[in-house]
Amino acid sequence: MVDFATMSSFGSTARGGVERQAASDADGETRAWFMEWLVARGFRVEIDMIGNIFGLLEWSPGAPYVLMGSHLDSQPLAGRYDGAYGVLAAAHAADRIHRSVLQKEEPLPFNLAVVDWFNEEGSRFKPSMMGSGVYTGKSGLDVALGTVDAAGVSVKSALDALGQRGSFVMTKPAAYAEIHIEQGRVLKREDAQIGVVEATWAANKYEVVVLGEQSHTGATVMEDRRDALYGAALTIAATRDLVDSFEEPLHTSCSELYVFPNSPVVVAREVRMHVDLRSPESEVLAQAGEVLRRAMADIEVKADVRIEARIAHQWDRMAYQPEGVRLARDAAEALGLSHRNIMTVAGHDSTNMKDIVPSVMLFVPSEDGISHNELEFTTDADVCAGVNHLTELAERLCRGGLGVVS
Amino acid sequence: MVDFATMSSFGSTARGGVERQAASDADGETRAWFMEWLVARGFRVEIDMIGNIFGLLEWSPGAPYVLMGSHLDSQPLAGRYDGAYGVLAAAHAADRIHRSVLQKEEPLPFNLAVVDWFNEEGSRFKPSMMGSGVYTGKSGLDVALGTVDAAGVSVKSALDALGQRGSFVMTKPAAYAEIHIEQGRVLKREDAQIGVVEATWAANKYEVVVLGEQSHTGATVMEDRRDALYGAALTIAATRDLVDSFEEPLHTSCSELYVFPNSPVVVAREVRMHVDLRSPESEVLAQAGEVLRRAMADIEVKADVRIEARIAHQWDRMAYQPEGVRLARDAAEALGLSHRNIMTVAGHDSTNMKDIVPSVMLFVPSEDGISHNELEFTTDADVCAGVNHLTELAERLCRGGLGVVS
Repeated sequence: MVDFATMSSFGSTARGGVERQAASDADGETRAWFMEWLVARGFRVEIDMIGNIFGLLEWSPGAPYVLMGSHLDSQPLAGRYDGAYGVLAAAHAADRIHRSVLQKEEPLPFNLAVVDWFNEEGSRFKPSMMGSGVYTGKSGLDVALGTVDAAGVSVKSALDALGQRGSFVMTKPAAYAEIHIEQGRVLKREDAQIGVVEATWAANKYEVVVLGEQSHTGATVMEDRRDALYGAALTIAATRDLVDSFEEPLHTSCSELYVFPNSPVVVAREVRMHVDLRSPESEVLAQAGEVLRRAMADIEVKADVRIEARIAHQWDRMAYQPEGVRLARDAAEALGLSHRNIMTVAGHDSTNMKDIVPSVMLFVPSEDGISHNELEFTTDADVCAGVNHLTELAERLCRGGLGVVS
Repeated sequence: MVDFATMSSFGSTARGGVERQAASDADGETRAWFMEWLVARGFRVEIDMIGNIFGLLEWSPGAPYVLMGSHLDSQPLAGRYDGAYGVLAAAHAADRIHRSVLQKEEPLPFNLAVVDWFNEEGSRFKPSMMGSGVYTGKSGLDVALGTVDAAGVSVKSALDALGQRGSFVMTKPAAYAEIHIEQGRVLKREDAQIGVVEATWAANKYEVVVLGEQSHTGATVMEDRRDALYGAALTIAATRDLVDSFEEPLHTSCSELYVFPNSPVVVAREVRMHVDLRSPESEVLAQAGEVLRRAMADIEVKADVRIEARIAHQWDRMAYQPEGVRLARDAAEALGLSHRNIMTVAGHDSTNMKDIVPSVMLFVPSEDGISHNELEFTTDADVCAGVNHLTELAERLCRGGLGVVS
């Protein structure tokens, strides 16, 4: 808990949260502190070409690694636990296992490593899950390094400014594990200490551009207006209304909106925004996308604007490996922790990792399900239960709990 | 026309418009060129404490001035004629009268001055009509100088950076005249060369803040969301729908919208925007404001947000002095120019000036009524007819056409 409090002081905000967007000064400070922490406990620390930080414990030279971690970066004005908890929990679990290995002088068959994935949040540099995306080969390194923030600063130059871009190449691990706060209320409602993630909701993210015509807010008669902001407003309302068209769970939202030109006396000629649809069922998402397209066609007529929508990022509903779910439940049973299977709505770095190696994703409860908000909170008891569970799981993975890698 | 083409080169844009927001480099260049133009033709040039530029022709020492002008600043990506035409038309009209006075060696009873009012547009520094607002005592000088733009630069330091803040105090003139493009289609439809403004539409401008709660766009269940952007979208739609509730003319718009935090994965906690209601009838505006407040109360429930709305700037329907309207129509008759009475929806510096001295506001036609847009256009024939009319009107004003000032 002392380590977590220290870490939460970097980029801390007035209302008890943190602001550590990817490769910001506060993110850099947190990462530097984390690397010192690892070095002091005997980890070998390396940074790869997209800024992922690895802490390596090699007790069986040449054997594959078990990897676990999460992300230290945050949204603007965000909570302290989101991501950062998972990185520190992984480091503590690894340290405990390391000390046990040293004490017993009995090396485990797999080595163990922890990771801070760069830019999981995607608020400063899009898309999200950038570090694990590059590591798993889903995104190109050059494209990622060339991505710029709203001020035109590239990932490459932001990492270089922190002196945190490396050249290390991490080998493919035997298995991956990640622990995270739930960002929902299921575990609290069901009174479970551990959630074992069995699948990810599908997500479709659109970049939407509404094109109107610039004119005078006062003088232009209403019939002549082609108001991009009005078109965007109707699109935002239609996106919310989608939820009512489906009995299956569907989450929709509009966010990150820009108006051009953004003047008080000018009818907007262009609005750009982000539309985000998520559901446990890929089919529901496809249908919702169709309903939204039809609604946009109506809005084009009503507001006399043009609307362009393209999918910028998407993933299908995807299951985590069942043997990993089983192993995590067994570990919880062994420790006497209450647990249940759960789905994740949000994407995580494990969403990328599970596609290349067997991966286990764990949740701990989050009070009131509050997320991406400074008031996000997890109790110390739940925090510690999660670290205990992750330690047990990691030890089982290091003993080959998911089989010997080919 | 050559002068107008030269002037339109400052801050010129690719699509034939200009971008010269108040006290920008482009505004400063235009102003410097205008001052040189005046000096070269024998005007005495002075700048007052809020950056208004005066060009003075004094042929009857001690007599009151007739003042005419408009503004050189523009909206972002705006048309060339809006404001700038009126300043240059005033300068040309004054120069013609000056040469006639010199040639005939017959001074007129009133002196003549032209003005470029600082920051009429209000896009960089709010509110609009700042220079004439301070000159007429409607706004405080210190508040205006301390107003900052989105980057935190104050009016004072922006003017100082241009070396265009002065200490001149312009005496109260005997009368004021301004010519401007119509920003509507009435004159084109009615085939009139000159519009004589008889009244200003009333305007109520609100600053609206929608307060929600920051959360995760994916994970947060829909029932728990307090989405400020959704609340803002419903408010934008309700503002547009107001128009349908009234038979009388009513123009409504939402503009200049900011989202906090503006991240793709975060439900917005706050949206700030500008709401603008205009009508020829002050009573309609009051009723529309009430309908909007009731709609906002419903939106607060529906979107689970809080909405704060306060009036930031307003003016009632106000008539221009009838004797000024008569004088302008007589001048048009004398020149054989077709003319009609008209109302102005947009505010102008004459909206401020008419409250302290008899003021005459003239419009020339604008093709398709396009305004605050680079494609705004007025024909050379209409431009020249306007200058001829303003010259005739100014000469009549200098001969005491609106009576001798007390």
